[in-house]
Amino acid sequence: MFEAKFTNAALLKKIVEAIKELVSEAPFDCTENSMCLQAMDGSHVALISLKLDIGLFEVFRCDRTIALGLSMGELSKVLKCSKSEDTLMIRFEDSEQDMVTFTFEDTKGRKQDITLKLMDIDNEHLGIPDQKYAAVVEMPSTEFQKVCRDIASFSDSMNITATKSGVVFSGSGDSVTNTIRYSKDKTADDDDDKDRVDITVKEKVNLNFSIKYLTNFTKATSLSDRVRLSMCDNVPLVVEYDIEGNGFLRFFLAPKIDEDKETMDD
Amino acid sequence: MFEAKFTNAALLKKIVEAIKELVSEAPFDCTENSMCLQAMDGSHVALISLKLDIGLFEVFRCDRTIALGLSMGELSKVLKCSKSEDTLMIRFEDSEQDMVTFTFEDTKGRKQDITLKLMDIDNEHLGIPDQKYAAVVEMPSTEFQKVCRDIASFSDSMNITATKSGVVFSGSGDSVTNTIRYSKDKTADDDDDKDRVDITVKEKVNLNFSIKYLTNFTKATSLSDRVRLSMCDNVPLVVEYDIEGNGFLRFFLAPKIDEDKETMDD
Amino acid sequence: MFEAKFTNAALLKKIVEAIKELVSEAPFDCTENSMCLQAMDGSHVALISLKLDIGLFEVFRCDRTIALGLSMGELSKVLKCSKSEDTLMIRFEDSEQDMVTFTFEDTKGRKQDITLKLMDIDNEHLGIPDQKYAAVVEMPSTEFQKVCRDIASFSDSMNITATKSGVVFSGSGDSVTNTIRYSKDKTADDDDDKDRVDITVKEKVNLNFSIKYLTNFTKATSLSDRVRLSMCDNVPLVVEYDIEGNGFLRFFLAPKIDEDKETMDD
Repeated sequence: MFEAKFTNAALLKKIVEAIKELVSEAPFDCTENSMCLQAMDGSHVALISLKLDIGLFEVFRCDRTIALGLSMGELSKVLKCSKSEDTLMIRFEDSEQDMVTFTFEDTKGRKQDITLKLMDIDNEHLGIPDQKYAAVVEMPSTEFQKVCRDIASFSDSMNITATKSGVVFSGSGDSVTNTIRYSKDKTADDDDDKDRVDITVKEKVNLNFSIKYLTNFTKATSLSDRVRLSMCDNVPLVVEYDIEGNGFLRFFLAPKIDEDKETMDD
Repeated sequence: MFEAKFTNAALLKKIVEAIKELVSEAPFDCTENSMCLQAMDGSHVALISLKLDIGLFEVFRCDRTIALGLSMGELSKVLKCSKSEDTLMIRFEDSEQDMVTFTFEDTKGRKQDITLKLMDIDNEHLGIPDQKYAAVVEMPSTEFQKVCRDIASFSDSMNITATKSGVVFSGSGDSVTNTIRYSKDKTADDDDDKDRVDITVKEKVNLNFSIKYLTNFTKATSLSDRVRLSMCDNVPLVVEYDIEGNGFLRFFLAPKIDEDKETMDD
Repeated sequence: MFEAKFTNAALLKKIVEAIKELVSEAPFDCTENSMCLQAMDGSHVALISLKLDIGLFEVFRCDRTIALGLSMGELSKVLKCSKSEDTLMIRFEDSEQDMVTFTFEDTKGRKQDITLKLMDIDNEHLGIPDQKYAAVVEMPSTEFQKVCRDIASFSDSMNITATKSGVVFSGSGDSVTNTIRYSKDKTADDDDDKDRVDITVKEKVNLNFSIKYLTNFTKATSLSDRVRLSMCDNVPLVVEYDIEGNGFLRFFLAPKIDEDKETMDD
């Protein structure tokens, strides 16, 4: 038997909205201490890795390791039935092997049970090697979302150049170049933690990415105030959103290699 | 001559928005004490009954019984010209037999007259027999709207089961069942009148309805904080919205009979 | 060299949004004291005239008269990259003759440069003769926007009749007539300046206009609280929005002459 209760159904709703366009179906791997999901996007370009630790749950009980295979589209429809203050209990009984029940409850005597049929999903678990990154940028998640949107207005790809003096996001189209700079000095002096852009660079990086995927990742913006970009030459970028200090949603995306790199003078 | 003045044009606007998709054209029957409208929807499945008593009006004068035949689409366009604080005067002169004038006025010297041509509409007046109902559920109108929306996500029909212990709305689709329960005890204890779900059951009812029609009825949600569902086996359901204590908008819908009924253990 | 800095990028954004549907491309004429734009709409029916005086700018330097030919669609995409509190610097270097750079900057170390290629645009400068107008109506710009929207619901053209006693906007469709009156007396007494409708009539005017163009002009509503309509028989109407007391956006539209005029008894 497995049961896990969220104090607020809105958290899982945000997560599913963030990934459902990249991942159409996936198994939630439930163990003693966590619910995890790992999947490649449909075109096998990006990797999505979600971890929800036991600390996020009001109730968490998992007698044996199980994988709950779910359609993200169906799950999204289920979660749209929740009201903002509802609790959410997810329950899987060993006796009903192919069903999982989502129960929303408010404080006024209303109780909603939605039972979904589980799917049988083949999932290749990719090992993600530990990696040291040459540059890490941590910034407000809404700021990164805006950067992606702006670059996407004119360009198919985004160049990220991080140096000791700052980070530059840029893209160019037919008759336009668009360059967004965050300089290190100014932002470091800023007192307002929330809006700070933290730039940690051991070695300069200069990488190109498909803007379409980056834009898609920013659907997770509402999950966390901050986003962390970890970069290294010839290694996938990690775009990470922390989940209330008890989990994360990470997107991995390999850099484009066939493109001419744009450079920045510093 | 007929004239009727609403202190606020918004009331009639809400009514017309609520019914215009079900009723494309209909006569407003004006008598000494009220304006009424009764019509079947286009596919002759649901019956709509509107009553606006004289108490809703600032001015009301009706010399002789008349029927003002109007296109709900045109009337909706007329009412969209009103501003939120506008008064609305409806005026029909016997000398201009096929025209009715809608006048919006604000307190700043602005006056807008819209004159519409009347339509000649055949209307069969259906007698609605007095009926004792086995179960009556009164609940927040937004809550009922949400129930309909949730059930409609997965199912074409909604089962309503009311027993002495509570009311259950449910529906099922290909791989999903969705069940929303309001238990009697908890809600009865609730102090907050506005959010209360009142359940009065003489005899258990278990009925199926087309979710499409129920969803359509909930367009009247903004008319009233509360909605009342009156049910009895083999008799049309009544979904009723009170209008400021001086009228009502009622929708009648016959239960589906060819479906397998879902049952609830209580 | 030319450089001009707006304290707030939002102003130019509003202007471009207001005109981009009428004008697909146009030159900004930059002189010692101002930036101006004058263009006919695509179908050569309406004339748009924009003037931005030096007083609107935080920095303004123009060494020699130049014309910056821009696509309004591209410029709109550029300006959508600005955040509400961003400053905007526009810079043209003589050394890079076919490029103009837009720089958005906030107070937190973020700097965004967008470089656009200039277009070569033939522009016929039409002299706009000085004109005395028989009637001038000044009213809240949102009120005029609503008048246009209401008339457009039922009619292709709008009749404006201004007399000493007031102004009447009207239009009629198949089975509808729609008439909006502002009477002079009431509005003159009104203390609330912002909502006042000022009517100055030397001679009665009665003119018909294409509602499509008028509706399009009202996209400038957010630029100014007030709009001024200047009218005279057989002369184009002027619809003018003031820009912070240091410029204007004016639309000119010739009256329809082949239509039967509607008259108003006064």
